[in-house]
Amino acid sequence: MLRRDFIRTSAALAAAAALPGCGQIGMGDYSGDLTMDWRPYTGQLKYSFTIATYSRTFTPLVLVRLRWRDFVGYGEASMPQYLGESTDSVTAFLGRVSSEVLPRFKDPFLMDDILSEVDALAERNTAAKAAVDIALHDLVGKILARPWWQIWGYDATKTPCTSYTIGYDESDDVVNEKIEEASWTKVVKVKLGMGEEKDKRMINLIRAKLDTVICVDANQGWKSKEEALDMIYWLSERNVSFIEQPMAKEKIDDAAWITERSPLPVIADEACQRMTDIPRLAGAYDGINIKLMKCTGMREAHKMADMASGLGMEVMLGCMTETSVAVSAAAQLSPAAKWADLDGNILLSNDCFSGMRLTDGKITLNSLPGIGVEPVKPFEEL
Amino acid sequence: MLRRDFIRTSAALAAAAALPGCGQIGMGDYSGDLTMDWRPYTGQLKYSFTIATYSRTFTPLVLVRLRWRDFVGYGEASMPQYLGESTDSVTAFLGRVSSEVLPRFKDPFLMDDILSEVDALAERNTAAKAAVDIALHDLVGKILARPWWQIWGYDATKTPCTSYTIGYDESDDVVNEKIEEASWTKVVKVKLGMGEEKDKRMINLIRAKLDTVICVDANQGWKSKEEALDMIYWLSERNVSFIEQPMAKEKIDDAAWITERSPLPVIADEACQRMTDIPRLAGAYDGINIKLMKCTGMREAHKMADMASGLGMEVMLGCMTETSVAVSAAAQLSPAAKWADLDGNILLSNDCFSGMRLTDGKITLNSLPGIGVEPVKPFEEL
Repeated sequence: MLRRDFIRTSAALAAAAALPGCGQIGMGDYSGDLTMDWRPYTGQLKYSFTIATYSRTFTPLVLVRLRWRDFVGYGEASMPQYLGESTDSVTAFLGRVSSEVLPRFKDPFLMDDILSEVDALAERNTAAKAAVDIALHDLVGKILARPWWQIWGYDATKTPCTSYTIGYDESDDVVNEKIEEASWTKVVKVKLGMGEEKDKRMINLIRAKLDTVICVDANQGWKSKEEALDMIYWLSERNVSFIEQPMAKEKIDDAAWITERSPLPVIADEACQRMTDIPRLAGAYDGINIKLMKCTGMREAHKMADMASGLGMEVMLGCMTETSVAVSAAAQLSPAAKWADLDGNILLSNDCFSGMRLTDGKITLNSLPGIGVEPVKPFEEL
Repeated sequence: MLRRDFIRTSAALAAAAALPGCGQIGMGDYSGDLTMDWRPYTGQLKYSFTIATYSRTFTPLVLVRLRWRDFVGYGEASMPQYLGESTDSVTAFLGRVSSEVLPRFKDPFLMDDILSEVDALAERNTAAKAAVDIALHDLVGKILARPWWQIWGYDATKTPCTSYTIGYDESDDVVNEKIEEASWTKVVKVKLGMGEEKDKRMINLIRAKLDTVICVDANQGWKSKEEALDMIYWLSERNVSFIEQPMAKEKIDDAAWITERSPLPVIADEACQRMTDIPRLAGAYDGINIKLMKCTGMREAHKMADMASGLGMEVMLGCMTETSVAVSAAAQLSPAAKWADLDGNILLSNDCFSGMRLTDGKITLNSLPGIGVEPVKPFEEL
């Protein structure tokens, strides 16, 4: 900047800093208390949800609000049973963040330090950590007055279509009803791994009505690598785009054996929780499924996407059943993903935020700052 | 944000957007021509610079100015002989960026797309690419009205001390003069790899006058792994912190052999140019030296730091002899680095920008937006 431009800009910044709520705060003046509150929320599923290992009709969530000066950031934890977290464990963890971490920071821009300290509070609690991370990103994005897809330098038009999950059901009528409801989507996702007969029945029911591409999540359900490879070959003749987690997450050698022979890309889901998992998966899978609730949130997810790309792996973005808060947070990263399964909010009958939308199945990012969400009514009344 | 807060913030943003030069631009309204010009600049070295393979008294540089609306971003290419770039090759490349890439973008926030297209113009030209990348970061940071260390979420106080290089000279008097001049530094860097006798002479000359920690850059100069390990053991008894690039960059197996046995950390420099080099170095070196001129700039450097950390490797930041533009750009990332060798600007007698400063050798980041630099006189007169 020429000196005269710099002086002009500085004057404008000082003027802007005087505006309440304006992102432009005087340089270096970022002091204020960070306060957080939260509300448990029961996400009601439109349909009961069955995968290889269990079935449920609702999902426990915790919504988080982080405040600093006039700014408010929203976050969310989703606690599917298999993650090992509950409303009690999440609220207990958030209480510790609130009393042990936040009082020591006055500047929300210190994201690296804040989130490192949150991470260090406990070994697991990844969903609770993600709730804090998402709220902090929303807050900082609002202070910067920019959405995170833009701060990260992505083109918001380069988003993938999300897949929409057709859950397993014993009743053909229920499955057919779900298939009807999925007619809008460009990509159907189906959870297999319940044995050859049940798996093929689901695919055949879908293929009888839809010719859209299918992605398959085996959820560690297939028992042997030979069984998995047989199923993958069968699936590869039915317009399937990729296979998630064919076998148990520990069986990395089997995954490598399958990936080497598979006609379809093989993606790690349960095997890939956090960034440190990626290096050893690089030879064994073609890509990774990044989910905020597994990896502690947006900061690590962003690093994981970069790392996977650097290792020549494909990036997929996934979610839990969760509101538009966590789904919109994940969607900020979606221009960096080849595939996305961000249907968590539309699987709920009681989503309580607006945010990322779908346009004919394609993820459509808005230009609102932070993660681009707004509650449908005041937070206290959710 | 509560709806009433959101409305209030939106109004403030709209008001701020009306201010000329203010970072707050109406959401989604980022359209404007990106124009770039550049000036060759000869960096004069305070001392002639000798490493294992050659000697020189000046360094060719190209300074870049990128403009968009009222904003100006500065960048720089430094072309040490061994990188294979020259003033001609850099200006030719910048001409192509200016005519082939920039006219297709109106929004500087599309950093991922812009820099991917710049990278795709040619296989090498990493210094020219870095000049564009640095200028774009400076520009976008100024639009965001934030320095990059803050956008990246780092604590600006957690910077390392930079090392200061004491170059080789045949004359003891000249070396002693350089040692005198280095008395302020907390970390001395010395370039070895010229044979046992010359190497030990340099260390002994330094140790006769200074007891500060020394880091050693062998610049691929040691001929066999056994010779390298012998020298490393000798050095480890003389308060040396780490060894850079003990042997030729291609000899990864030898590097692994040395690293396994070395009492000091072994860092890859020439062996690590870009992000894609890192995975195969993970078992062979303890860390990597990231330099903007090798890796195409700040965007990839930031990803490399994250990737190295994720792989359990140490991060070092290095530079060429270059002005405060490129050094301050690298310094934005320094809170993520364990070691830094960012002395390029103080090796010049004609630095033409202000920027990052040193406080008793410690990197001291300012709060100016972008990369925090200002030319000492108008760009046209540099």
